Amino acid sequence: MITREALFDDLSALLGKGGLLTESGDMERYRVDWPGYRGAEPLAVARPTTTRQVAEVVSYCHRHDIPLVPQGGHSGLVGGALPDADYPELVVSLERMASVRQVDPINFSMSVDGGCVLQSIKDAAEAADCDFPLSLGAQGSCQIGGNVSTNAGGLNVLRYGMMRQLVLGLEVVLPDGRIYNGMKALHKNNAGYDLKQLFIGAEGTLGIVTGAVLKLFPRPQVSRTALLACPDIDAVLGLYALARRSCCDLLTAFELVPRACLELAMEASPDLRDPLEAPSPVYVLMEAAASGPVDLEAMIEDLFERGFEAGMLTDGVLASSDTQARNLWHIREAMLEGQRNRGEHLRTDVSLPISSLTAFHQRASDEIQALCPQATIIAYGHIGDGNLHFNILPPPGLEAEARAALLHELEERLFEIVDDFDGSISAEHGIGRFKQTAFLETLPEPEYEIMRGLKRLLDPRYLMSPGRILPRPIE
Amino acid sequence: MITREALFDDLSALLGKGGLLTESGDMERYRVDWPGYRGAEPLAVARPTTTRQVAEVVSYCHRHDIPLVPQGGHSGLVGGALPDADYPELVVSLERMASVRQVDPINFSMSVDGGCVLQSIKDAAEAADCDFPLSLGAQGSCQIGGNVSTNAGGLNVLRYGMMRQLVLGLEVVLPDGRIYNGMKALHKNNAGYDLKQLFIGAEGTLGIVTGAVLKLFPRPQVSRTALLACPDIDAVLGLYALARRSCCDLLTAFELVPRACLELAMEASPDLRDPLEAPSPVYVLMEAAASGPVDLEAMIEDLFERGFEAGMLTDGVLASSDTQARNLWHIREAMLEGQRNRGEHLRTDVSLPISSLTAFHQRASDEIQALCPQATIIAYGHIGDGNLHFNILPPPGLEAEARAALLHELEERLFEIVDDFDGSISAEHGIGRFKQTAFLETLPEPEYEIMRGLKRLLDPRYLMSPGRILPRPIE
Repeated sequence: MITREALFDDLSALLGKGGLLTESGDMERYRVDWPGYRGAEPLAVARPTTTRQVAEVVSYCHRHDIPLVPQGGHSGLVGGALPDADYPELVVSLERMASVRQVDPINFSMSVDGGCVLQSIKDAAEAADCDFPLSLGAQGSCQIGGNVSTNAGGLNVLRYGMMRQLVLGLEVVLPDGRIYNGMKALHKNNAGYDLKQLFIGAEGTLGIVTGAVLKLFPRPQVSRTALLACPDIDAVLGLYALARRSCCDLLTAFELVPRACLELAMEASPDLRDPLEAPSPVYVLMEAAASGPVDLEAMIEDLFERGFEAGMLTDGVLASSDTQARNLWHIREAMLEGQRNRGEHLRTDVSLPISSLTAFHQRASDEIQALCPQATIIAYGHIGDGNLHFNILPPPGLEAEARAALLHELEERLFEIVDDFDGSISAEHGIGRFKQTAFLETLPEPEYEIMRGLKRLLDPRYLMSPGRILPRPIE
Repeated sequence: MITREALFDDLSALLGKGGLLTESGDMERYRVDWPGYRGAEPLAVARPTTTRQVAEVVSYCHRHDIPLVPQGGHSGLVGGALPDADYPELVVSLERMASVRQVDPINFSMSVDGGCVLQSIKDAAEAADCDFPLSLGAQGSCQIGGNVSTNAGGLNVLRYGMMRQLVLGLEVVLPDGRIYNGMKALHKNNAGYDLKQLFIGAEGTLGIVTGAVLKLFPRPQVSRTALLACPDIDAVLGLYALARRSCCDLLTAFELVPRACLELAMEASPDLRDPLEAPSPVYVLMEAAASGPVDLEAMIEDLFERGFEAGMLTDGVLASSDTQARNLWHIREAMLEGQRNRGEHLRTDVSLPISSLTAFHQRASDEIQALCPQATIIAYGHIGDGNLHFNILPPPGLEAEARAALLHELEERLFEIVDDFDGSISAEHGIGRFKQTAFLETLPEPEYEIMRGLKRLLDPRYLMSPGRILPRPIE
């Protein structure tokens, strides 16, 4: 085993001035993820500036048996990028590899460094009259390498798919330090196994994404936002099927907002007023967008009429200006803030067949309320993806320990119900560390074995983000 | 090694009456693919009716070291499903597993057997007022298991993506006979490595796809077809970027048809007349479709005007009836027939960044003509996917051997140019056997090793479609 001093010397020499951080103070911000989760102090923080440097650092770690963890913008929600406490890890931060390499509007593609911040990618696309549609709350800080590694979702998935569908090519430093160069800007390529798929959603356990070729779309010229009031979730599902048709698949968002969420939003943002006259059990916040001459307003009005006739909606408002649209979207931001203000609570990210949402919601609500009548359920989400954030606010006044135990119990119950409905306990957030136990509980044997085999194939020494998704092998 | 008689007895017992074919005459049609390629006589043909039976057959082969090859609708173009001559294989045909299991229009999904014929899937989707958009010439015979295993492309890729983007879940019999049950009807699922990606496009070398959950879309209510005359390929590329915008990504096809193809079509189909007054170097056959109230005609007319002003098109015709639209599409079918009528020729399926198509086409044409001035180049394709079928008709009157040698030489030259432009030698047809040599020539070492590793991981005995994509290991 190499000494800490030798490691520092070698990596400093390799990375140059500013390339390696070793002081506790300097490393502090690499220990914390956005929701406030905190990891251990890493061995050091490597900040390479080129793919070659990443490869050299990884190769060095491979030769000296040093575990490492790649880091993007620290906005993960499952603790995947937090340094380990038991086996000190080298953090490899891509923050100094943040360039847009090339934008190709004719090919509807762009190539970027793995450390490129999502917002700067969206800006560069827009400057070329194109759109990179991935849209996340964290887009001002999250990095594309992290988006690829976590197969990020977000608001526009129903139209553009998750990150996996937006990747044309990848460049990855493999756990032994070799470089997989798959930076082809091809919309179709059936030459052999599609290796880039391995790294998308692997949460940094199979390699470090140092570059990506992304798929672009025409930039929307017009968009329309509406808020619809619906009698129940079943009506929302019917309305969704209708909206897909009426709006010709130009829908970019279709968000379920239950009344409780609207109230939370108004609590957090006192200038926010009830957008419709009478309260309604559930709302839909929807958006449609188009890059050419389409009358979105007529489409949405057509939807209003048909939905109203079918009893799927009782009221609605179509934003007539950008300001009105922003105000409607503000509800969604404010409701997240309202949740945060309520202190520690259970946040989940489950997905189900859309057609099971009503039955799932009913059963989950019943069982959670039976277990804890004073809990408040806040179940909102991306209807078009079958993705519910079925969150639970515990009763106020509980001691920290009792609260944690209660939330854990409620989560276990909820996940059992998800499993009964053939759903997923992680629609978009991934597994990381926090969901590993629940994930492994229902993972069938052949899948576990193949996943283990993939890890062994690419990272036989188990040095790349060890312990995330899959547990360490028994030593 | 088990005797042939024991194998017949055991598999007959396992599969029941009609489940196993062993007579040469009965097995004839399992030796031939649609383009006329012919394989060896198989050991036998197993025709299971359930996933359980497939698993039992595969498990039996695994125990007794018998190589096998899954077969779908025999429409492959690279010889992947043809039985091997040197190592007699058991054919596993999914033709008796052809049911639609369930259609769920609320979830925009359906689940089907692996042997389900694509057309029957499209019909079932339509009956539920939905659309399964995969669209291929072979859709009346090809099976979804084959479509998944070859990551099928086709006409509508620019809007809906390739097969990979249309799969929500898979059921696969693994090479050891175990069943991977990933039949979840989820639009989002980030719980661990996405194993289904391994089997999509693996050409049956990693498992047999016995079931799939497919993604559906709203059924188009209106569509419009147009034929545009353009001065050159560069203009076509500019027009494509314009059309993506003008038609709000409602484009379902954007096909390049050079003048030579139109002439071939008219040759093959004498009732076909020149659709525009003056001949033009290249044409675009385009289609847009929508599920709701959109004025596609106005959109396309807007495109006409803007394209005309920008010098990207010189003339065009917008079909004003379904009959007219069918007549325009008939050009594309007739040109394929025209090619076939010319006898043996070089068929390729290359892809490039769309922005490189002009330069690639120029250089490839120059070099091919320099090598063989009397060859006729027929380069048509899916512009929006950067996918060219750059085909070459040899001069007439060559002896079979000389022709084969010439076509081989031209192919090698063409593939070198594809490689220089960072393209792919197989956009949608796959590798199978026929493209293996060319594929391996430019495959970088780490990729070769990972592909080998994947094969070893899932099929350590090398019994599942051996020799396809990757060569057999040296024994």
